[in-house]
Amino acid sequence: MYCENLGVRGLASKFGTPLYVYSAKTILDHFLKLKSAFSSLNPLICYSVKANSNLSLLKLLTSKGSGLDIVSGGELYRAKRIKCPAKKIVYASVGKTDKEIRDAINYGILMFNIESKPELERVNKISEELKKTTKVALRFNPDVVPGTHAYITTGKKETKFGMDEVEVKRIFASHDKYPSLNIVGIHMHIGSQIIKGAPFVKTFKKANRVIRELKSKGAKLEYLNVGGGMGIVYDKERPQTAKEFAKKVLPLLKQSGLKVILEPGRFIVGNAGILVTKVIYLKETASKNFIIVDAAMNDLARPSLYGAYHKIVSLTKGSNKRVAKSADIVGPICESGDFLGKGRKIKAKAGDYIAVLGAGAYGFSMSSNYNSRPRVAEVLVKNGRTYLIRKRENYSDLIKGELII
Amino acid sequence: MYCENLGVRGLASKFGTPLYVYSAKTILDHFLKLKSAFSSLNPLICYSVKANSNLSLLKLLTSKGSGLDIVSGGELYRAKRIKCPAKKIVYASVGKTDKEIRDAINYGILMFNIESKPELERVNKISEELKKTTKVALRFNPDVVPGTHAYITTGKKETKFGMDEVEVKRIFASHDKYPSLNIVGIHMHIGSQIIKGAPFVKTFKKANRVIRELKSKGAKLEYLNVGGGMGIVYDKERPQTAKEFAKKVLPLLKQSGLKVILEPGRFIVGNAGILVTKVIYLKETASKNFIIVDAAMNDLARPSLYGAYHKIVSLTKGSNKRVAKSADIVGPICESGDFLGKGRKIKAKAGDYIAVLGAGAYGFSMSSNYNSRPRVAEVLVKNGRTYLIRKRENYSDLIKGELII
Repeated sequence: MYCENLGVRGLASKFGTPLYVYSAKTILDHFLKLKSAFSSLNPLICYSVKANSNLSLLKLLTSKGSGLDIVSGGELYRAKRIKCPAKKIVYASVGKTDKEIRDAINYGILMFNIESKPELERVNKISEELKKTTKVALRFNPDVVPGTHAYITTGKKETKFGMDEVEVKRIFASHDKYPSLNIVGIHMHIGSQIIKGAPFVKTFKKANRVIRELKSKGAKLEYLNVGGGMGIVYDKERPQTAKEFAKKVLPLLKQSGLKVILEPGRFIVGNAGILVTKVIYLKETASKNFIIVDAAMNDLARPSLYGAYHKIVSLTKGSNKRVAKSADIVGPICESGDFLGKGRKIKAKAGDYIAVLGAGAYGFSMSSNYNSRPRVAEVLVKNGRTYLIRKRENYSDLIKGELII
Repeated sequence: MYCENLGVRGLASKFGTPLYVYSAKTILDHFLKLKSAFSSLNPLICYSVKANSNLSLLKLLTSKGSGLDIVSGGELYRAKRIKCPAKKIVYASVGKTDKEIRDAINYGILMFNIESKPELERVNKISEELKKTTKVALRFNPDVVPGTHAYITTGKKETKFGMDEVEVKRIFASHDKYPSLNIVGIHMHIGSQIIKGAPFVKTFKKANRVIRELKSKGAKLEYLNVGGGMGIVYDKERPQTAKEFAKKVLPLLKQSGLKVILEPGRFIVGNAGILVTKVIYLKETASKNFIIVDAAMNDLARPSLYGAYHKIVSLTKGSNKRVAKSADIVGPICESGDFLGKGRKIKAKAGDYIAVLGAGAYGFSMSSNYNSRPRVAEVLVKNGRTYLIRKRENYSDLIKGELII
């Protein structure tokens, strides 16, 4: 297995395991495919930092013109560190604190995506205190079923995200209550890992109707932020390509007459990264076989948290022919929830490297030190060279900030 | 609400939120209750580090005679840092690496709990290389249903843990194949948060039968490690007390004739800690109400990962009368899986503090930086004084080890 033209086994033995490996070429390829598919709209593409927030990946994307979609003060800090132009940053989150709002206004971000009326009032008040006028978009919750995992469904009315049509219209109608705000946009985000166009089409149709009505009542709209959510291949999904997606939604987006913002995360980095791990033991029992590896649920939470499927392949030559016995691929953590894959047919022996595919998004960014396991290293392959973009933690990092009394 | 005699609201405003607060008194109380209930056996109690691995808590417990149950090299490092006597450390995990095994042998730990034959061979080989004789216990998987969440069920035959009766006997019969090992014990651990005695009774009966048979064949057994797993109150559970538990199992444990090791974790710290959080916004929608707080699933993963219930109370005087409207208590993280409690009836307004109870175990130890959120501070209340036992992370901690290329 190769990442660009470098052997992944070589990287594993050089940098140790577990190891996240990303391909700059694939990341940019996904970014440019999306950009090209939507080129007739010239949208602002804001990469969703939460998917993978490593500074080098953010820098890579912003150097090609991407903006950033942030959800916290910590992500704003990251955006500042890589000197992301402020006017390419949009900020969404149901729980922005006063300090986070103040920091973002002071940095001069393009706009806030507002999730509730109390938040709108708070941003107005803080803007007033800072003597600034702040641009905001209202997050419209279209009550659409996206057909994805409940935890990453965000556009149904029962979720904590956004506001319904009635509330959105009410706020526009009373916009003079918020003298320090310019309400310039509509934001939507219906969920993540959505592989079909239909939920988006439904959403954008609803949005267009709302936009028309708002405009007819004098709203000065400039932006339509359609969020992210485009699915990728983890198993046998056949998600639409950027081009197919664009073809379906471009007419609707053009109808809106607004500057479009896209917020892709998983679509850009999901399939541009793998988690490489080493087999520690093979364990055969009367009722089940286990391939015990050195990566665990603290390194990649998705299988445990969402029951997510990731393809897993051996990096040992000739080892990917299907074998007779199936095995669960599990980590060293002391709970049964610690698995990377169940019932897989992979030939492997102790010491072999195996790779968990599609691990570029929501992999490292969700990792923890559970069971006092240091967080792993991240490597970026770019133009045939490898860069250690995050060092492996050591034991002393585990106790940083702790005091023995 | 008070932690020992200190007001929790005062702690929250002094140290900020989210904040973990632990009571030394409650921790020691639980430890001593267990010790006293089992005093007729004079067991070695090894606190399960993974439940909460803060150095000050480890020090607190070991200063009262507790040993430590570790599951990784990182936990061994922690044990060393607080100078835990090596002969009070037992080490379990299905995926011990060569380096971890070597480090533990060199420190001179009491014994390894061995989870598989390949691991047994590995520990024998490394012991040989180090010219040491290593004590080990075999982890016996009794195939018992503990009646707890699947992720924390560990004593059923389909789990990755331990070995079945046939394998255990086979290994004892061939113990001369492992000249650098002393196979001195049987280890069991059937799961976590088990509130009834019956699964334990069933397990210990099976163990006694196996022990009798092994002894009759000349095995030189010294230790019976019965693991942990005693449940605590999260909601309306009525878990057995240490005394009730001891009453049920003491006769069985005495029958074994072996030195007993207990590995409590949650039982010691679970109800000795709370997570204090502040309300950022109240959000009312046509279909649901939300109390949006500054703690999230990255700070406390249990509700999201296990669907776990935690009691949540307001710290504002007079606010705990049941109110008419129920609300979901959610954090700022951008996914629907980010909740601390659903459908709760709590009176709260923005700025109020609320506390998530029963958060001492598997709270901080599972926390992450997801959504680029710094990990929170931990405070220990001891003899009426407060100690900051882990500092709140700051933004620069988030990017430690990252390089911008």
